[in-house]
Amino acid sequence: MAKQFDIVFFGGMGDLALHKLLPAMYRCEVDSEYADDCRIILTSRKDLTGAEFEAKVKTSLVNELAADENVDINWPQFFARLECVSLNISEGGDEWVDFSSSFKGREDILRIFYLSIPPGIYESCSENLDKYKLISKTARIILEKPIGVDLESAKIINATVGKYFDEDNIFRIDHYLGKETVQNLLALRFTNILLDDVWDNRSIDHVQISITETVGLEGRAGYYNDVGALRDMAQNHLLQLLCLVAMEPPHEMNADNLRAEKLKILKALKPITEDNVTQTIVRGQYSEGVLNNQVANAYIDDLGSDFGGSDIETFVALKAEIGNWRWAGVPFYLRTGKRLKKRAAEILIEFKALPHAVFPAKFGKVQPNQLRIKLQPEEGIELTLMGKKMHDREMHLKPVTLSFDFADSFDGHVRPAYQRLILDVVDGNSSLFLHREEVEQAWSWITPILQCWEADSDSKPASYSSGSWGPLAAELMIEKDGRSWVEPGSK
Amino acid sequence: MAKQFDIVFFGGMGDLALHKLLPAMYRCEVDSEYADDCRIILTSRKDLTGAEFEAKVKTSLVNELAADENVDINWPQFFARLECVSLNISEGGDEWVDFSSSFKGREDILRIFYLSIPPGIYESCSENLDKYKLISKTARIILEKPIGVDLESAKIINATVGKYFDEDNIFRIDHYLGKETVQNLLALRFTNILLDDVWDNRSIDHVQISITETVGLEGRAGYYNDVGALRDMAQNHLLQLLCLVAMEPPHEMNADNLRAEKLKILKALKPITEDNVTQTIVRGQYSEGVLNNQVANAYIDDLGSDFGGSDIETFVALKAEIGNWRWAGVPFYLRTGKRLKKRAAEILIEFKALPHAVFPAKFGKVQPNQLRIKLQPEEGIELTLMGKKMHDREMHLKPVTLSFDFADSFDGHVRPAYQRLILDVVDGNSSLFLHREEVEQAWSWITPILQCWEADSDSKPASYSSGSWGPLAAELMIEKDGRSWVEPGSK
Repeated sequence: MAKQFDIVFFGGMGDLALHKLLPAMYRCEVDSEYADDCRIILTSRKDLTGAEFEAKVKTSLVNELAADENVDINWPQFFARLECVSLNISEGGDEWVDFSSSFKGREDILRIFYLSIPPGIYESCSENLDKYKLISKTARIILEKPIGVDLESAKIINATVGKYFDEDNIFRIDHYLGKETVQNLLALRFTNILLDDVWDNRSIDHVQISITETVGLEGRAGYYNDVGALRDMAQNHLLQLLCLVAMEPPHEMNADNLRAEKLKILKALKPITEDNVTQTIVRGQYSEGVLNNQVANAYIDDLGSDFGGSDIETFVALKAEIGNWRWAGVPFYLRTGKRLKKRAAEILIEFKALPHAVFPAKFGKVQPNQLRIKLQPEEGIELTLMGKKMHDREMHLKPVTLSFDFADSFDGHVRPAYQRLILDVVDGNSSLFLHREEVEQAWSWITPILQCWEADSDSKPASYSSGSWGPLAAELMIEKDGRSWVEPGSK
Repeated sequence: MAKQFDIVFFGGMGDLALHKLLPAMYRCEVDSEYADDCRIILTSRKDLTGAEFEAKVKTSLVNELAADENVDINWPQFFARLECVSLNISEGGDEWVDFSSSFKGREDILRIFYLSIPPGIYESCSENLDKYKLISKTARIILEKPIGVDLESAKIINATVGKYFDEDNIFRIDHYLGKETVQNLLALRFTNILLDDVWDNRSIDHVQISITETVGLEGRAGYYNDVGALRDMAQNHLLQLLCLVAMEPPHEMNADNLRAEKLKILKALKPITEDNVTQTIVRGQYSEGVLNNQVANAYIDDLGSDFGGSDIETFVALKAEIGNWRWAGVPFYLRTGKRLKKRAAEILIEFKALPHAVFPAKFGKVQPNQLRIKLQPEEGIELTLMGKKMHDREMHLKPVTLSFDFADSFDGHVRPAYQRLILDVVDGNSSLFLHREEVEQAWSWITPILQCWEADSDSKPASYSSGSWGPLAAELMIEKDGRSWVEPGSK
């Protein structure tokens, strides 16, 4: 169903826009999501010629999309709705006047402002949107992570943007929530008695959530070295996934209820304080190593000599505990890091071991049941049970992995998370976006960890080799509980 | 591992031997299960020439086995161990003297006697085995169904055979228990916390066990018309499958414990009496109809005019209830019949409906979870859960069926149940055979039903069309509980 709207990408020539957002918008074109005069406006600090602009966007699409997505064929139609606007966001003046004039006569058309810019200029951007009368009654704003660097700064951003936009019109994006499999996790949890009955501390031993990257800094030194893995990945993505696994069933599935249930989980997280910080969280920084048969630099070398070293973490592993009736005693082990052995995002639910071995040990080792929710690089859900090896007269027990095939032999391209999420904004569906309270609650839990690290200046991130699964301390953390990390992507 | 034994098939030229037992024994040859001088002795009432015997067995193997099983190649080796003995089982005399003399010098070799003969001559057969000194210390006897036609006759058979053989050496066969998937059901139940946690009346709504046949009398009028579906299929196969679904986990899996647990279930079956017989059991007899696009006769026409009509049932459907802590309130609906629409044997576990709909109805109907254990015509296990339809931005709920693949891309021929079971007898493993007490306990539950039917001479089996799923009354029986039969083999 074609939709009528104008969308502005502030930071429209940045990495995120070129690599993720514009390919998603292109897909909307192919999927006929746009009404004829929908506009996509990209702001740029640099004054690009039309040809430069066209080349930059088209090259990026060709690189990002599959060969059979026919960028050449659809390009003229798509390009016709693109506008590049030269804009210094924080300054007002003529550029803003010009920019705002293009919305004349389009007051009734839904406006969406996507802030793909540093949070430091969220405020001035909002102010200028207001000043130049661009905030129509239905205007919506999309905020990219990071929403702040700690609780205080997050509150300031939320308050600032909140001056100009109602909470209902603020869409804080977390692209992990746009993945099909995350949707499916909700469907699975709340439509299957068989899973619901085992979804608690009586049946689940522990949960592992891993987002592992093989990339290093990727030229984002300026940003990343101020932020680190805990803020960049754990505060948002890892905690959001934890919430979706752990939340109670809402009485009805809608945005308010879903977000209220996630918030309850965040509030139930047991605090990490100076008393337990060293036992419950490990940070690491990658050193030189071998990854995919190539020598990979240490973080400090990737950073460059300008920085003169760094104690920022490129890896964190932590043990989160939810102090509520359902989850007491079930640790959630979270980890994320750069330059690890494999790129993957995966939730592993490990069920409890059998209380008693009915079959003698000679029949084979019984492994605990596992449910894996794979988000990256492929999406999918797998259930591993034990069964009998077929065609052996002797009972030989062995694990059997069942793959959920939801696709019905679908042979198109998987919709990028960003496409789905932006269309949700168009529809005003905020289910998969974070409420202000969620963001702040997550920071309330994360900020004390940051403060502990700051207070203990002797403690540094542990070094781990590029191409490994992180520092030894992360293995020890889980092993002292009698468990071990399960390699994402393995069976 | 090659095994040393002599096996005698009494009734060796009968249908069961030719169609099932000898093909199974041939497979043992191919699988190198025999020591060099293993003997397979077939008794026949008719005095066959060597050529007649060879032709009969070989023809049967060629018909029963797949084309790529190379009967021609393996025939000479297999045929070398076959002996046909002319024997009138119930009479003693010269034939028995000759027969027994062939065991001279082989006293230490394991002997197995397979009684594929009418139960009426079990006694004289056992007597003659004793009289002619054939029952060595380790000799084992295999009894085919039916073990009696009611409790009293079953006790007599068990007592008679028990005079000559210890219970440990009596193997009462139920070939359904030899199926791979039945083994797998036990493995699944007792090695998966995820299934064990939902295996009771808190999570399971009801169970259906169906063994449906398309065949009619198949020339067995003399036998079948005295017996009927309740005795022929329900007393043994259906109740055994019910036991395997319902039994408690034994402290250790071995023959004694397994059979003790099954016995407990049989003892816990709520009695069917004259007060509830009409509500809990429906019997039917097939009438003319269309099956596989061909006109199929009525039972009375198949039977022939010699019988002058019959009130025997060719179909039963019944509701069994297990009065114990785990299963109270969970009906087990059992059904079996001839000339039904499809040949299948299947156990369906239907889990409870969701207590509450979290997703609005517009997202799709939520079906209860189902676990299907398929025994026939293909073997397999399937789990049906609800999930989200992929690639729809809207939440569309749909059922997803997961197939357990235990086969590891096995491309051989599935071992026939009889092969496995006979090899179990050779090994002395009685796990998959029925204990005397089980047989008698099953009859204790079945016999009152037969007596009710007999006492109420006005009530007759309901007529059902060949090619249907049985009489309407069977549908009504389950529908008055708010449930319905699930077609075996469907998804």
